[in-house]
Amino acid sequence: MSSVIVPSQPIGALSDAWRKVVGTGEFVLGLRRDYLDSLAVVQAEIGFGHLRGHGIFHDWMGLVRQYDAAGHVGTRYVWTYLDQIVDAYLEVGIKPFLELGFMPQALASGDETVFWWRGNITPPRDYAEWGALVRATLRHLIDRYGLAEVRTWPIEVWNEPSLKEFWQGASKSEYFRLYDQTAFAVKDVDADLRVGGPATSPESDDWYLPFAEHVAASGAPVDFFSFHAYATGPAQHVPFGVYQTLRHPSTLLEQFARPRTLLTGTALERLPMHVTEFNTSYRPDNPVHDTAYNAAYLAPTLVGGGDLVDSFAYWTFSDMFEEQGVPASIFHGGFGLLTHRQIKKPTFHLYAFMAAMGPDILARGHDHLVTRDHNGRVAILAWQPVGGTDDPAEPDHHHLSLSVPVAHPDGTVPATAYAHRSRVNDESGNAFTAWQHMGRPATPTSRQLDDLHAAAEPTITHQSLPLDPTTGRAEITLTLARHEITLLQLTPVHDETPPWLDDARILGR
Amino acid sequence: MSSVIVPSQPIGALSDAWRKVVGTGEFVLGLRRDYLDSLAVVQAEIGFGHLRGHGIFHDWMGLVRQYDAAGHVGTRYVWTYLDQIVDAYLEVGIKPFLELGFMPQALASGDETVFWWRGNITPPRDYAEWGALVRATLRHLIDRYGLAEVRTWPIEVWNEPSLKEFWQGASKSEYFRLYDQTAFAVKDVDADLRVGGPATSPESDDWYLPFAEHVAASGAPVDFFSFHAYATGPAQHVPFGVYQTLRHPSTLLEQFARPRTLLTGTALERLPMHVTEFNTSYRPDNPVHDTAYNAAYLAPTLVGGGDLVDSFAYWTFSDMFEEQGVPASIFHGGFGLLTHRQIKKPTFHLYAFMAAMGPDILARGHDHLVTRDHNGRVAILAWQPVGGTDDPAEPDHHHLSLSVPVAHPDGTVPATAYAHRSRVNDESGNAFTAWQHMGRPATPTSRQLDDLHAAAEPTITHQSLPLDPTTGRAEITLTLARHEITLLQLTPVHDETPPWLDDARILGR
Amino acid sequence: MSSVIVPSQPIGALSDAWRKVVGTGEFVLGLRRDYLDSLAVVQAEIGFGHLRGHGIFHDWMGLVRQYDAAGHVGTRYVWTYLDQIVDAYLEVGIKPFLELGFMPQALASGDETVFWWRGNITPPRDYAEWGALVRATLRHLIDRYGLAEVRTWPIEVWNEPSLKEFWQGASKSEYFRLYDQTAFAVKDVDADLRVGGPATSPESDDWYLPFAEHVAASGAPVDFFSFHAYATGPAQHVPFGVYQTLRHPSTLLEQFARPRTLLTGTALERLPMHVTEFNTSYRPDNPVHDTAYNAAYLAPTLVGGGDLVDSFAYWTFSDMFEEQGVPASIFHGGFGLLTHRQIKKPTFHLYAFMAAMGPDILARGHDHLVTRDHNGRVAILAWQPVGGTDDPAEPDHHHLSLSVPVAHPDGTVPATAYAHRSRVNDESGNAFTAWQHMGRPATPTSRQLDDLHAAAEPTITHQSLPLDPTTGRAEITLTLARHEITLLQLTPVHDETPPWLDDARILGR
Amino acid sequence: MSSVIVPSQPIGALSDAWRKVVGTGEFVLGLRRDYLDSLAVVQAEIGFGHLRGHGIFHDWMGLVRQYDAAGHVGTRYVWTYLDQIVDAYLEVGIKPFLELGFMPQALASGDETVFWWRGNITPPRDYAEWGALVRATLRHLIDRYGLAEVRTWPIEVWNEPSLKEFWQGASKSEYFRLYDQTAFAVKDVDADLRVGGPATSPESDDWYLPFAEHVAASGAPVDFFSFHAYATGPAQHVPFGVYQTLRHPSTLLEQFARPRTLLTGTALERLPMHVTEFNTSYRPDNPVHDTAYNAAYLAPTLVGGGDLVDSFAYWTFSDMFEEQGVPASIFHGGFGLLTHRQIKKPTFHLYAFMAAMGPDILARGHDHLVTRDHNGRVAILAWQPVGGTDDPAEPDHHHLSLSVPVAHPDGTVPATAYAHRSRVNDESGNAFTAWQHMGRPATPTSRQLDDLHAAAEPTITHQSLPLDPTTGRAEITLTLARHEITLLQLTPVHDETPPWLDDARILGR
Repeated sequence: MSSVIVPSQPIGALSDAWRKVVGTGEFVLGLRRDYLDSLAVVQAEIGFGHLRGHGIFHDWMGLVRQYDAAGHVGTRYVWTYLDQIVDAYLEVGIKPFLELGFMPQALASGDETVFWWRGNITPPRDYAEWGALVRATLRHLIDRYGLAEVRTWPIEVWNEPSLKEFWQGASKSEYFRLYDQTAFAVKDVDADLRVGGPATSPESDDWYLPFAEHVAASGAPVDFFSFHAYATGPAQHVPFGVYQTLRHPSTLLEQFARPRTLLTGTALERLPMHVTEFNTSYRPDNPVHDTAYNAAYLAPTLVGGGDLVDSFAYWTFSDMFEEQGVPASIFHGGFGLLTHRQIKKPTFHLYAFMAAMGPDILARGHDHLVTRDHNGRVAILAWQPVGGTDDPAEPDHHHLSLSVPVAHPDGTVPATAYAHRSRVNDESGNAFTAWQHMGRPATPTSRQLDDLHAAAEPTITHQSLPLDPTTGRAEITLTLARHEITLLQLTPVHDETPPWLDDARILGR
Repeated sequence: MSSVIVPSQPIGALSDAWRKVVGTGEFVLGLRRDYLDSLAVVQAEIGFGHLRGHGIFHDWMGLVRQYDAAGHVGTRYVWTYLDQIVDAYLEVGIKPFLELGFMPQALASGDETVFWWRGNITPPRDYAEWGALVRATLRHLIDRYGLAEVRTWPIEVWNEPSLKEFWQGASKSEYFRLYDQTAFAVKDVDADLRVGGPATSPESDDWYLPFAEHVAASGAPVDFFSFHAYATGPAQHVPFGVYQTLRHPSTLLEQFARPRTLLTGTALERLPMHVTEFNTSYRPDNPVHDTAYNAAYLAPTLVGGGDLVDSFAYWTFSDMFEEQGVPASIFHGGFGLLTHRQIKKPTFHLYAFMAAMGPDILARGHDHLVTRDHNGRVAILAWQPVGGTDDPAEPDHHHLSLSVPVAHPDGTVPATAYAHRSRVNDESGNAFTAWQHMGRPATPTSRQLDDLHAAAEPTITHQSLPLDPTTGRAEITLTLARHEITLLQLTPVHDETPPWLDDARILGR
Repeated sequence: MSSVIVPSQPIGALSDAWRKVVGTGEFVLGLRRDYLDSLAVVQAEIGFGHLRGHGIFHDWMGLVRQYDAAGHVGTRYVWTYLDQIVDAYLEVGIKPFLELGFMPQALASGDETVFWWRGNITPPRDYAEWGALVRATLRHLIDRYGLAEVRTWPIEVWNEPSLKEFWQGASKSEYFRLYDQTAFAVKDVDADLRVGGPATSPESDDWYLPFAEHVAASGAPVDFFSFHAYATGPAQHVPFGVYQTLRHPSTLLEQFARPRTLLTGTALERLPMHVTEFNTSYRPDNPVHDTAYNAAYLAPTLVGGGDLVDSFAYWTFSDMFEEQGVPASIFHGGFGLLTHRQIKKPTFHLYAFMAAMGPDILARGHDHLVTRDHNGRVAILAWQPVGGTDDPAEPDHHHLSLSVPVAHPDGTVPATAYAHRSRVNDESGNAFTAWQHMGRPATPTSRQLDDLHAAAEPTITHQSLPLDPTTGRAEITLTLARHEITLLQLTPVHDETPPWLDDARILGR
Repeated sequence: MSSVIVPSQPIGALSDAWRKVVGTGEFVLGLRRDYLDSLAVVQAEIGFGHLRGHGIFHDWMGLVRQYDAAGHVGTRYVWTYLDQIVDAYLEVGIKPFLELGFMPQALASGDETVFWWRGNITPPRDYAEWGALVRATLRHLIDRYGLAEVRTWPIEVWNEPSLKEFWQGASKSEYFRLYDQTAFAVKDVDADLRVGGPATSPESDDWYLPFAEHVAASGAPVDFFSFHAYATGPAQHVPFGVYQTLRHPSTLLEQFARPRTLLTGTALERLPMHVTEFNTSYRPDNPVHDTAYNAAYLAPTLVGGGDLVDSFAYWTFSDMFEEQGVPASIFHGGFGLLTHRQIKKPTFHLYAFMAAMGPDILARGHDHLVTRDHNGRVAILAWQPVGGTDDPAEPDHHHLSLSVPVAHPDGTVPATAYAHRSRVNDESGNAFTAWQHMGRPATPTSRQLDDLHAAAEPTITHQSLPLDPTTGRAEITLTLARHEITLLQLTPVHDETPPWLDDARILGR
């Protein structure tokens, strides 16, 4: 059992790198109601800064249209869907993190595609056309949303060119060409737009230095460095799903740290680092995403990631996602924090618990984070440490003992603190388990959805916690169930009880 | 411990007398947003038929206006607020149960008033004016809402004339005069409007026969008989509150039954009986209303009341209520199912649990009600029996064992049932306790309200319950905590699990 | 100038054939927010019964999924999107009119597709698979929505098989085979489901008798007959648009009538007739759809269509439609009653005006329809007659003189009627014209959208119309501007003016 | 006819004094839904800064409660309603302008009251109790809303003490005592809270200097000076209404200016001046408030008031107002910008038109205000000048000719401007007239409300206005109907029309 004496003075400030960016399925999904309903829930309860997804240039966006006007062939850019989607983002207070790709068929040099929705992964047949598209898109966005606003939207060049599934031949040299052409086109529009890359897949060590050397040589501007991190091994397929091995949770923070290490001494070393995708599994059909285990596994990453990078984007906020086709079932191992129909998964609650933390860190450890806000509210995030495939057997309970100072903002010590605990584990706050108990209905009925929404809410307990009048401390022992994440909030009590009340006189007391 | 073998075939149908009518504070409160927000919640989760409150003719409704036009003195009826309020009722699917009273100052014979809001309790100085008001009001309502609609709104004459606080001198003869004048005025407007009384306070045994004899003599029409029931003894006052003794819960059903017994042999014996007010305490400042004890106490009344009367109206749906002044604190012992700001009390959940019951009764006992619906869903309402002041000491737990048959609607027996349990007791689903732990903030902050709303939700647990393949039964032992009411729903599972899934392969399993 | 003496007694009842069904773009669009927002507006202000669109089986719906489970190849039907969409329909009170098609790639015999979204138009490679899909889909819908509900959803077999663009080779014999297989599969599921066809394109005279003879021979069930009607000639293309000739408006009613005439003497003659698509132009990029002319042109069709057929479905309710790709501009000649972002077109108002008509027809003519409701409200729909390409020159004004009886429901004649007029013409209620004045912004800004929404509302005028105390009639002369449709509502006035008011004493009078 | 050459460069900046504050009926109305619905409309379309109303301490607020606890008599302040109301204000983005009064019965020295709702107008029987109430209220507000927020809420001492109806005996000396006690109490709580007075009724010239002299002597802090302005003469009563004479519109600006003039040389001369109430009539039952005349009359005041004072508060935003009792009819001459049920009056539109003006003033005259915003949009507010009782006869039309420069923000001149005009006059945008035509229904039905809401919207016209390519000017002649206020917005057109379009080819052109 851990035993922690929480100090009275902050040891640091909580970084917001964990909520700067979140991932999404293909851009055009932003037209869908279920997707936007989920985004609204996520923004109300978590509040991400930016949203990043593939395919802003995919044909389903309808952006590039060629026409023949009396023999003159022209290109018209159609902003109908782009504007609807970006309007919808801004309406709920999230900005785009622009990932430029895939290739519109009209500009493509080949027919290779990726995903059920067939994103074209070939280079442009003519870089001038590509540059024109990039410039036109940015100019249009600036016209509509204003230069000051668009300058706050990072612009990333392509997605995972280091994998042949996403970039024809995974050609480094062709990507560097694409990068240069794109980065220069961006700066043509405005020198203060922020462009970066290379958006590489996990552990693309062989790309970092070459990219740094290339841009040093080409003079292409780079405002940030971006890459991805995942923790699973190869997929073992079953129909509509996979099982995978999972490394130790420390792998993610190690992956976050690695590029900067490798870039030491280059001009890129000091740049903002954005992990533009991360998760346990890189598969949208691995049931681990639906579990409390996933939340417990990721807790140390959310707590520690801000030490290493400027942002790290959970891939993705919603199960409305179609890379492997239309999900066959409400729970299907999707990446989402929310399923279709807005059922919250345990990892949603991990993010919501993080959003409840205060700005000042009082303590941090392998199973806890303790913060305080300006009202004196102490928030404790605790989790059961888990070990991945190699260390699969968590005990049924995890115990954590804390000595916590609680005081009013003016320093005075109240007699008690109000303790409000929200619990999520294999049973509580766990609609996935409830859904299994229901017999895994692929598309639940309205009544089943009501039950699932109810089962998805954390279990709440509350108590009046006496504080030691001398030390101003509460002594707490938390018992966490299997794979539990817990948020315990201690609020200094201003007791308004009038002297004449006697609860013993209420019937039933 | 109770042990119940639930039969497979229904033993009866669940009456809806428990939700036909609910009470409310003074009529004019229907203009308030918090009140209407609460009414919308209540209607969405419970769904009452009618709403009954005092003071449709109170001066704050502004109905009766006298004017002088160049020396001619006239009366104008002003429907501005009445129409706004009734429109708002119908918008959320509830109809008025019209209680005609109190006396507009312009028509009153005296100045005696009741309540903080000063309802005038004196007879009309001129019954012709009163009759005109009654007729004009009903005609206006028919003009606006249609005759067919208004015929479904019961019309009750005055409130608790058997108490001198509500009717000057508690004069029986004067009330009978008022009753006759009113009833005849109602029927003048339309013979199919439904009128009744005498709306007496609890245990007004000396009013029932005299009323029956009077109307037999006067020929005044009576379409229903109405009266009130409460279970507490005299108030022991503290500032802003009272404590009271409480009789055994059986008192309410006994009170429900009594008038019909006393009216045996009269023309009123066979009339619809409406308990137009009931609750534990008749005081809007008794903390018992805020407790789980109140819910456990009332459970047998809700389950059994329909055997005895046609409706029984919980007094009241919302704490927005001003008879003793503006409530000083969010929890203050008010009658409401909801506090201001829509915090659900345990008794709200008792009603919501009743609304989840199916139409067919399978079993009924001193601590349970078991029903089934057309989908085969079995709903079990269970509660810890409590005993009132004379038997105050409930044990910490109550156990209940049930053998429950579960089957698909076509009679086939699934392998399992989905068991979804909602628990409310002294800790769970209990914002009142949370609020005590918070130090009883009179007007909670926005963050405190969030915590209270979360604490007010029932604790949800779920499991997969195996059914005996031979008997088609689940054997259940329910353990209820102190003052618990529980809703356990068992749904026959249609198992959609594909054969290739192996949950043991999910990480963390 | 027309001059009409409107009779006091009804000459008939208004059919609701005009609003039984409306058309929509591809089924999967039902996931989109803008589409559902438009559907909600349409339902609130018009209230259609059913919604019919192509592509319920198109691959983008993700319905048919084949998998390999350890060597066993299986098919799984995925209802994820179908259920989301049908749930959304029912939420706003509209039911599906099920058009079964196009062919999922997994079942198709070939690769031919139609539209930007590539609906596969080939027959099934195996009719058993097709039958299985039909049966599974209907059984699933019945499981989810109930048999009684699904029996009210007509089921149509394919779309326009008479055109080679929609059905490979426009093969009659192959369609008859598809029809039989589908109709029998439908009845396998439930004998009371309603199935029909042949959903032919306009003027497919050579299909009607052969279809009747075929089903007489094959014994395939037919519960209704369906076909389409359009009024335009061939398209003259410009980029992103077409211009076309337009026949005289009488063409549509003639087309509505023709199949039944040709089917005289067959078993199909007495079946319900459904025009499952109609409009002026069959092109989603003809600007005529955006004009007041379109509304004036269609007025006689809406008024008269119910004499000839059981329903006629305007193609389509929303511009969210992708057959020719993503619309390049907010106004683009789309079929919709509403543009993206819910700007109302003149034809929307034609439908909304029809929805304001009363149930009793008092008069009907080439430029007017007069109805009355149970409150005595007389509604006059008037329009400027227009003539299509051959008679293109409407005068600047059209005059219409009416003598209209107005009375209270009890037959008494008030002194005045309240006249409330809503006007839509080339300037009023015409956002298309406003948008042209704005310089045709492809994706208007938020402020421009506000102006367009304001410009799209009909111009309202009102007056107090004196009635002749002897005849109870108002003598009205309506002047309609170019291409105007007008709704004039006359409501008998119950005058509540108190005698002491003197408007001349208000300042400024 | 006026003829105006609008300059190309701004001549000044538009003050926001016109929307800094708006008035409201008694404070407790802030609990009502209709009131809050109206406030939401007003804030969405106008956006006031502060809301000021009487009676924050009136008994209906329930603030002061005395109790006896075992013989100890105490006072408890009850914030239940105050907090609900202020929460509701802040929710829609408006802050309270705190007017401290009237006297709670528990603190009052007498029984004199004012209004239907009986505000007690007597001084406190004990100034210590009053001071305690002031301090407790402010401390509570600071606790709940934060010190920084509450410092932005002006605090005004009482209402119209210069009238004996509002302050017992209209006693100057007693008011000065009240002022001092209150102002010192305010500063006790926080030195940066802003306090002021004397909130005098119109033309209380004999109060200004004495107040200045008094506070100079007493040392009481004064952060702003407040007073009221109305333009009508004595009331000529009819039942439920009055008619009054009305001075020339210049009276209001003269009244705005007068106190500062009279205070010249005193310490108060440089203070912020707040007109905390103004309107044409000071009666809530004068039909002039419902007319277009009222809007035309007040236009010069809204345009010019900011030259003279820091704020001037229209009395009031909503007809939900009860000083003379519950309004008998939907239109009743109430002060509101909106009636009950949110019907917009012409003066609402005057404010909404003001809210559409740009920040830079280009021209200003006796019948117009011309502004421009950073997008180059030129907004013209024009009105027919009216003259009050002495000059009652406006012609049927008013003409105004303007030469207006329109350019893109970069200075280039487009070929055309988009002209969007919103008209409100005796017929257009005038639900009051429509309601008269309807027979003045006291409480309109749902259908009548729909018609009234439609009739209340301004009539919209639009055109494409050619600009002189040399001068960049549009030459406009505006014709205003009787009592018209018009908003004409000219937006520089960026023409996106593709070259291939030919509108002549659309049918019906």
